[in-house]
Amino acid sequence: MTVDLTNVFQQIDGDYENLKELLREAVAIQSVSGDPSKRDETIRMVHWMKEKLEAIGTVCELADLGTQELEGKTVKLPPVLLGTLGTDKNKKTLLVYGHLDVQPAAKSDGWDTEPFELVEKDGKLFGRGSSDDKGPVLCWLHAIRAAQKNNIELPVNVKFCFEGMEESGSVGLPELLEREKDRFLAGVDFVCISDSYWLGTKKPCLTYGLRGICSFFVEVTGIKQDLHSGVFGGVIHEPLQDLMWVMAQLTTVDNRIKIPGLYDQVAPLSAAEEKTYDDIEFDVAEFRDSVGAAHLPTEDKKTLLLRRWREPSLAFHGIEGAFYGPGEKTVIPSKVIGKFSIRIVPDMEPEEVNRRTVEYLNKVWAERGSPNIFKPRPGHSAKPWVVDVNDSNFLAGARAMKRVHGVEPDRIREGCSIPITLTFQELTGKSVLLLPLGAADDMAHSQNEKNNKWNYVEGVKTLLAYIMELGSA
Amino acid sequence: MTVDLTNVFQQIDGDYENLKELLREAVAIQSVSGDPSKRDETIRMVHWMKEKLEAIGTVCELADLGTQELEGKTVKLPPVLLGTLGTDKNKKTLLVYGHLDVQPAAKSDGWDTEPFELVEKDGKLFGRGSSDDKGPVLCWLHAIRAAQKNNIELPVNVKFCFEGMEESGSVGLPELLEREKDRFLAGVDFVCISDSYWLGTKKPCLTYGLRGICSFFVEVTGIKQDLHSGVFGGVIHEPLQDLMWVMAQLTTVDNRIKIPGLYDQVAPLSAAEEKTYDDIEFDVAEFRDSVGAAHLPTEDKKTLLLRRWREPSLAFHGIEGAFYGPGEKTVIPSKVIGKFSIRIVPDMEPEEVNRRTVEYLNKVWAERGSPNIFKPRPGHSAKPWVVDVNDSNFLAGARAMKRVHGVEPDRIREGCSIPITLTFQELTGKSVLLLPLGAADDMAHSQNEKNNKWNYVEGVKTLLAYIMELGSA
Repeated sequence: MTVDLTNVFQQIDGDYENLKELLREAVAIQSVSGDPSKRDETIRMVHWMKEKLEAIGTVCELADLGTQELEGKTVKLPPVLLGTLGTDKNKKTLLVYGHLDVQPAAKSDGWDTEPFELVEKDGKLFGRGSSDDKGPVLCWLHAIRAAQKNNIELPVNVKFCFEGMEESGSVGLPELLEREKDRFLAGVDFVCISDSYWLGTKKPCLTYGLRGICSFFVEVTGIKQDLHSGVFGGVIHEPLQDLMWVMAQLTTVDNRIKIPGLYDQVAPLSAAEEKTYDDIEFDVAEFRDSVGAAHLPTEDKKTLLLRRWREPSLAFHGIEGAFYGPGEKTVIPSKVIGKFSIRIVPDMEPEEVNRRTVEYLNKVWAERGSPNIFKPRPGHSAKPWVVDVNDSNFLAGARAMKRVHGVEPDRIREGCSIPITLTFQELTGKSVLLLPLGAADDMAHSQNEKNNKWNYVEGVKTLLAYIMELGSA
Repeated sequence: MTVDLTNVFQQIDGDYENLKELLREAVAIQSVSGDPSKRDETIRMVHWMKEKLEAIGTVCELADLGTQELEGKTVKLPPVLLGTLGTDKNKKTLLVYGHLDVQPAAKSDGWDTEPFELVEKDGKLFGRGSSDDKGPVLCWLHAIRAAQKNNIELPVNVKFCFEGMEESGSVGLPELLEREKDRFLAGVDFVCISDSYWLGTKKPCLTYGLRGICSFFVEVTGIKQDLHSGVFGGVIHEPLQDLMWVMAQLTTVDNRIKIPGLYDQVAPLSAAEEKTYDDIEFDVAEFRDSVGAAHLPTEDKKTLLLRRWREPSLAFHGIEGAFYGPGEKTVIPSKVIGKFSIRIVPDMEPEEVNRRTVEYLNKVWAERGSPNIFKPRPGHSAKPWVVDVNDSNFLAGARAMKRVHGVEPDRIREGCSIPITLTFQELTGKSVLLLPLGAADDMAHSQNEKNNKWNYVEGVKTLLAYIMELGSA
């Protein structure tokens, strides 16, 4: 019993100026969670959204998360907005997660326009948060408004969980959700998160996997304090020298990991799964040019996607304790900490990855033969996440996308980690769908973040179609 | 015709409270040349010293150096104090160089006392500049005062060149000296600088050599902007990965340089020169413990001193462009610049060292086989400096030290570079003597800088004896 949405979709197209106006208001609120001087704005953004949800009949509450220490100050954490729209016991319940905070932005960073003023140009809506994640959050609001305007009854109850700290590590949220397991999270049947991106710019997709992460710190010390390189150069074992040598033993030039046994833990790739990569629309040359590289370690589409999504990778982030400014400084740093992380995939277990990595580092260190003090240690870790592409939530998302875009969406994974996905899955025991609405070139976190007008409007339709499809899921 | 100084030395001992009071006044002036907010204090220090020199009959002038750009502001450079004491055409002329500015210091850096308040404790005078270089500069003043008080005629004319920018690269001084070559610097017969340290804490020494330096920047780039390590990890060639690998090819674990041919350029060590190392008082274990190392690449006294003074060394300083803060940041840096420098000794030529180093880096890079963009380039360089230990200026210094301390001073070199030494030598065409007064543990540039009461008082006697010895030089 599929409800025909043709007319509603036309109305949504016609309602564009209102959609844009609401996004303009949201972008203008400078809810930068990482900046303590903008904490009031971040809190204001949560209240602004609460009003909008209440206007469509949502019963809202603000869950207080207390305070945090930020740059030496004690600041209030933004509350989490928990909303309940419908409590019909005969209906299933969808939980929607999104975030209302944004990354920092300033025109002087290299933006072409003021980052907190929504500017439309060539079919693109420029502004911080337009795509990550204010745009998608507003798509939920518009989708439900459109249904209400047309007296279409939603086939599911909807709950909202919108936070204001996602860009700053979701401080306090996992603990809150843990506490809400048997109350707010009770009775949830489906979870949907729209906070990721399409693989390209044209074809829609659904995300069924995320890599996990294991972070590492490698500390080398051995001298009491930083030393003058003229006075001491040549007669001490330099910690930085040791550290760079050790780090250089971790990977090959083509970015393959040299830690023994790490690839052995990767779940075998079945012929069926491998075949799904054939149809995925992905232009390697476009990808290579977008990062500005001359060549990539592999330029075969399937191999490249497999490496991004279902193989571990090791990336170097930097060194703490050494000279990092411009120009010259003739110092020998006394204590340096190398930072790298390994993205992990099923069936890799963080504990096992940590163990093998530290073991390898210690083995390499023994070969180095330096008298300095070597302390490798794991940092934070997160498990990888993969969902069954045939589960009812996922299939509802696929049907919705086909209804709006006329094509079967690609099934993709992401190379990055969104730990809250796993938290929702574990606490609700239900399937989590990652339903991206934005294009790959939206430049989230970067200068000139934008949301295409087309993606924004089609996003509203997609979420409405998804909610309707859940009625038969 | 040696003047007996026994009584004068006793007077100097008895004058300690006045010596200390003058150092207290000088330390209290916060002449931190690197801090634009303290530029007025630095200028005030130059004026303060001018008054002191005028009080002993010096004809002074302030050489204006114009302005500099510092932290985005245009600030006035401190003038250079040029003084002339005596113009007797029948006497030779000594030029004394020293500096009136100091390194930054704050109690919060870990000082036990206020850095700009002179505090005497256990025979030590704590305070920023007490040893580097206000203490030695005041020793010159006291020495001449003591001679005048006792109606002892100085056997030489004395010129002073005291600057206020030494800790910030002596901005403007080389150019000023170049301009003064045929005026202020004309007729100079000897140059003396007291701005370095004894090799240990007990035995005096004279410095006859300094290493030069060649600085290098190694830039690796290849992607347009910093990338998310989850999304891009494993499918790009990381610049930081390449850089660490390349830097690791420059030295062995024992800090020997792997650049071919570099050691071949070192002047051969004659049996006679090697023999001079036998008598030098240097405690390897004390040195090792002072830096806090478990072991050193060599713990043989002679080998260690040779490596510090008359062999090249390569030190790594840090990396620009990578993450350097505490904690974790899952970014792949797009452009990184490695910083290292090579200390050079006679007969190494900076151009040759630069050429060989860049050549080796390019060879190693070719072996790496990365498609990233590699740009190694030399930074600033300075030639090494060595003086003849049998020249008359040097021997006058040695006789002075023996007169005050009763022992023949060690002849040492320094591993570091003091470029102004070479400037004076080249512009005057005369011998420059480095005559250190402070102990190796004075902690110049560090927390709790001090000058021993004993070194300060004996320093006055040493400089007086040196001036007198120049009469027969």
